[in-house]
Amino acid sequence: MRASAFHITTLKEAPNDAEIASHRLMMRSGMIRKLAGGIYNYMPLGLRVIRKIENIIRQEMDAAGALELLMPVVQPAELWIESGRWEQYGPELLRMKDRHGRDFVLQPTSEEVITDIARNEIQSWRQLPVNFYHIQTKFRDERRPRFGVMRGREFTMKDAYSFDRDVAGAQKSYQVMFDAYMKIFNRLGLKFRAVSADTGSIGGSQSHEFQVIADIGEDLIVYDPATDFAANIELAAAPCLIAQRAAPSEHVAEVSTPGASKCSAVAEMLKVPLSSTIKSIVLTTEPKDKPAVIWLLLLRGDHDMNEIKVGKIPGLKDGFRMATDEEIIEHFGCKPGYLGPVKTIKPVKVIADLTVANMSDFVCGANREDFHIQGVNWGRDLPEPELVTDLRNVVEGDPAPSGVGSLAIQRGIEVGHVFYLGTKYSEALKATFLDEGGRPALMEMGCYGIGVTRIVGAAIEQNHDDKGIIWTKTIAPFEVVVCGLGWGKSEAVREQAETIYTALKQRGIDVILDDRDLRPGIMFAEWELIGVPLRVTVGDRGLAEGIVELLSRKNPDPTKIPVQDCVDQIIDALKQY
Amino acid sequence: MRASAFHITTLKEAPNDAEIASHRLMMRSGMIRKLAGGIYNYMPLGLRVIRKIENIIRQEMDAAGALELLMPVVQPAELWIESGRWEQYGPELLRMKDRHGRDFVLQPTSEEVITDIARNEIQSWRQLPVNFYHIQTKFRDERRPRFGVMRGREFTMKDAYSFDRDVAGAQKSYQVMFDAYMKIFNRLGLKFRAVSADTGSIGGSQSHEFQVIADIGEDLIVYDPATDFAANIELAAAPCLIAQRAAPSEHVAEVSTPGASKCSAVAEMLKVPLSSTIKSIVLTTEPKDKPAVIWLLLLRGDHDMNEIKVGKIPGLKDGFRMATDEEIIEHFGCKPGYLGPVKTIKPVKVIADLTVANMSDFVCGANREDFHIQGVNWGRDLPEPELVTDLRNVVEGDPAPSGVGSLAIQRGIEVGHVFYLGTKYSEALKATFLDEGGRPALMEMGCYGIGVTRIVGAAIEQNHDDKGIIWTKTIAPFEVVVCGLGWGKSEAVREQAETIYTALKQRGIDVILDDRDLRPGIMFAEWELIGVPLRVTVGDRGLAEGIVELLSRKNPDPTKIPVQDCVDQIIDALKQY
Repeated sequence: MRASAFHITTLKEAPNDAEIASHRLMMRSGMIRKLAGGIYNYMPLGLRVIRKIENIIRQEMDAAGALELLMPVVQPAELWIESGRWEQYGPELLRMKDRHGRDFVLQPTSEEVITDIARNEIQSWRQLPVNFYHIQTKFRDERRPRFGVMRGREFTMKDAYSFDRDVAGAQKSYQVMFDAYMKIFNRLGLKFRAVSADTGSIGGSQSHEFQVIADIGEDLIVYDPATDFAANIELAAAPCLIAQRAAPSEHVAEVSTPGASKCSAVAEMLKVPLSSTIKSIVLTTEPKDKPAVIWLLLLRGDHDMNEIKVGKIPGLKDGFRMATDEEIIEHFGCKPGYLGPVKTIKPVKVIADLTVANMSDFVCGANREDFHIQGVNWGRDLPEPELVTDLRNVVEGDPAPSGVGSLAIQRGIEVGHVFYLGTKYSEALKATFLDEGGRPALMEMGCYGIGVTRIVGAAIEQNHDDKGIIWTKTIAPFEVVVCGLGWGKSEAVREQAETIYTALKQRGIDVILDDRDLRPGIMFAEWELIGVPLRVTVGDRGLAEGIVELLSRKNPDPTKIPVQDCVDQIIDALKQY
Repeated sequence: MRASAFHITTLKEAPNDAEIASHRLMMRSGMIRKLAGGIYNYMPLGLRVIRKIENIIRQEMDAAGALELLMPVVQPAELWIESGRWEQYGPELLRMKDRHGRDFVLQPTSEEVITDIARNEIQSWRQLPVNFYHIQTKFRDERRPRFGVMRGREFTMKDAYSFDRDVAGAQKSYQVMFDAYMKIFNRLGLKFRAVSADTGSIGGSQSHEFQVIADIGEDLIVYDPATDFAANIELAAAPCLIAQRAAPSEHVAEVSTPGASKCSAVAEMLKVPLSSTIKSIVLTTEPKDKPAVIWLLLLRGDHDMNEIKVGKIPGLKDGFRMATDEEIIEHFGCKPGYLGPVKTIKPVKVIADLTVANMSDFVCGANREDFHIQGVNWGRDLPEPELVTDLRNVVEGDPAPSGVGSLAIQRGIEVGHVFYLGTKYSEALKATFLDEGGRPALMEMGCYGIGVTRIVGAAIEQNHDDKGIIWTKTIAPFEVVVCGLGWGKSEAVREQAETIYTALKQRGIDVILDDRDLRPGIMFAEWELIGVPLRVTVGDRGLAEGIVELLSRKNPDPTKIPVQDCVDQIIDALKQY
């Protein structure tokens, strides 16, 4: 490719709505152009990156035995009604009517359609297992699209769906996909973690997210630097930090804590460590046809509640909300900020976090405004909690599950997800096959997504500097750029640059020749912004010495290499990049 | 690929709604599965064909200097309002609202978006010419989708758009695309014609359709077997068939023609050739704020009216309709079937086809029920027509424009279209650039479409027999199938089939190994239905003689080839296929 025949339009400034680095750099380098909120044109430069990512995914999916097909963007509502998602899915599901008034959706995923295919195509256990995938345009009508391709509305996703005879088969299919994902993300050249994840509302029982490590990430990943343990903080088990509850050593006493409605203020005022305070969280559930129930959740002052874990507690599973001030005053006789488990006015269900249950001589609210109680002990000053369970998020320094060392936390961008679905969809859509005994059985399913366009953004978030993008070589729009300095004037430069360009092309390198006769400063800044891994500069001054300059995008300093064997050296440098 | 790891589900019968061969064969071979009316899943087998077509298109578009990008499926209404197509486009344009109530469309084409990109990205003449294309999902909400992928609602199209500084540049871009299309359709291996086409409502002034020749085609192509002249019948000029008008030789006389309201019946009754009769067609136009005008169009009895040509006549350009019976009786004093240009009750505008204007001693309606007039002559029995022009469709045997030989007609399926747009969209969207003199000028545009999924159907319509599809080798889902007979029993067969399969794969052949242990009859019928070009059969009986069987899908009889050099012979046979 010659730059003069390519479309390069970089921008000095990114538009105001570009809040994060990847969005800014994709706009500035000319990879994308906004068409509407969350809807982007992928310009030739951006599409090259997308195609390389798609090809890596396709190769590894094919190698893993998955079969590519293509399901439509526009899907009939009937199937979504059958699965129940027509009702369950919120306004993110874009619905529309065709000219005859029939309901359709723009697909956000394809569980319904693939299950419909499977129930029509698969009759016998002999046809299983099978794994179908497609790489297709998806649409989610995000309320507030932002961050460019990271949270867009129209995007490209690879989604795969496995069908198996039984749970054991499904677990094998899951593992095959897990392994393929490891290969894919390794080939993409990104720092990532496969983390255990919550199975959430999709149902099923096993799930891993593939998270690209980046400070901007919306997910918190808990990991053990010494082992391969990693989990989304939503799921990661938070251990009890106190092996055994100590015997009481203090007298219980109400103390004045005027205005100290937060644990940190109380600890400071009473000159005790934050870890000897307890915070109270009051929730309400409203069971059908029964009176509302008030729950008091107790966490150590330095810990945060984990909503996912709380949502799994029996009685809280079907939904809960924060209690209202009225409900709190009715039950505790006091406004929020000074609440505690000792002597409530009306009974509440007390649930203690694992660590809280082993605390002794602790501080909690006195259920009296501007007062707390000090030296509180379970059993002596109040009954044991009704339930002791894991309520909190892991924090940095918590002991690792291995028993050695401690946990660390980092941020990640979710770019892939493998999911054991079980029979959720095959049951809803009655996707059965005849087993070896001739009996109909439900297919066991898994689903496996990769956000193709989101990977572009995540890769940039992970690899950029103040000059621009730093691509990994497998997904860079070009591997090498050959810059000819003084193109218009120097025949020697043109001749040598063309020779190197042609030789690299013949050796299978994805190379672009900059023949635009730009000033070096502008040209170099543009390629640094675009982030091509290697830059070869051909100029009259160098040629007089018999050298060209080779610059790695990861390195500030160019090296001089002899013209004679420069092609070999460039290819070597690319291998090592 | 191994058949046991692929998804092959052929059907004995096609569903009832499959009216044409390609639709039936795509369903039966398992290439597509219907999801909703005009919306299909492309199964792994079908997708392989689509990808091969896409790759040929992509390679030739790239070679022609076009740049691939990707524009969204969902497009904001604003741009369509700006171009005027929001109003002009009928119910085929699928419209919808997002969660905030904003209007969007599902793209049927991308003129608006690409022009928006051009006006934002292109400032200077130095950036021109440029040609952008994408291969993307399109949606047209057809009133009556049918014929499978031939007239579907969701389909894949390659659409390209060129931008030039002036008309001369645009014509050059047009020619580059025309040449690329010739290469593409030649590589697809299809019999096709590039035909001059009407520019219709899209505007612009130059247009060619690429038509795949097939009996089922909806388009009639007029061509000269001796030259490369070819045009859509909508556009093809129909010459005057009578070089000079002969002098009158008969007396004019009213004759009784009871019940003969059609030219053919009149000719039979009066024992005159059909070519001496004239048919009358009465049209009405309703100019704004003026009384309606009645038009009498005269064609020879054996000719048909061409609506496109009629629609270009001054006065008829802005729309016309067939006259009502009331209007006809008011102006002719007679009901339809016996109308003619001689002595109408009220004045009508008489327009004669080129051939009609040179007829003499002709027969026409007498404006009296059950009567015609014989021996009618222009000038003597009625005034010369107000306008003489080409009104008719070319018929087989009309003289060729070259002056030598005569025209033939065949049916075609439109699979490609190149179109010089001019400034229709650049004007509407104000897409200007600064020319060499620093003055803003409108970009000259062309658009160039190829119906990717429709090509699949057209290729099958052109190449099939009663057993199934006969693929051309460049787009076949597989080039070669190696069938192992008695797979489960014979180790020799397995070993030899695997050896041939592996060797072919290593030589770059797209080969599938049928290792499913099916009975030969079932296996062979399946591969004939699927239409793979070459079948290699490995069986114990052949191996005993040291041979395998090679069968071309174009040939009923297999040939025996020695096992030793069978790979070379298979590859040779593929080259010659």
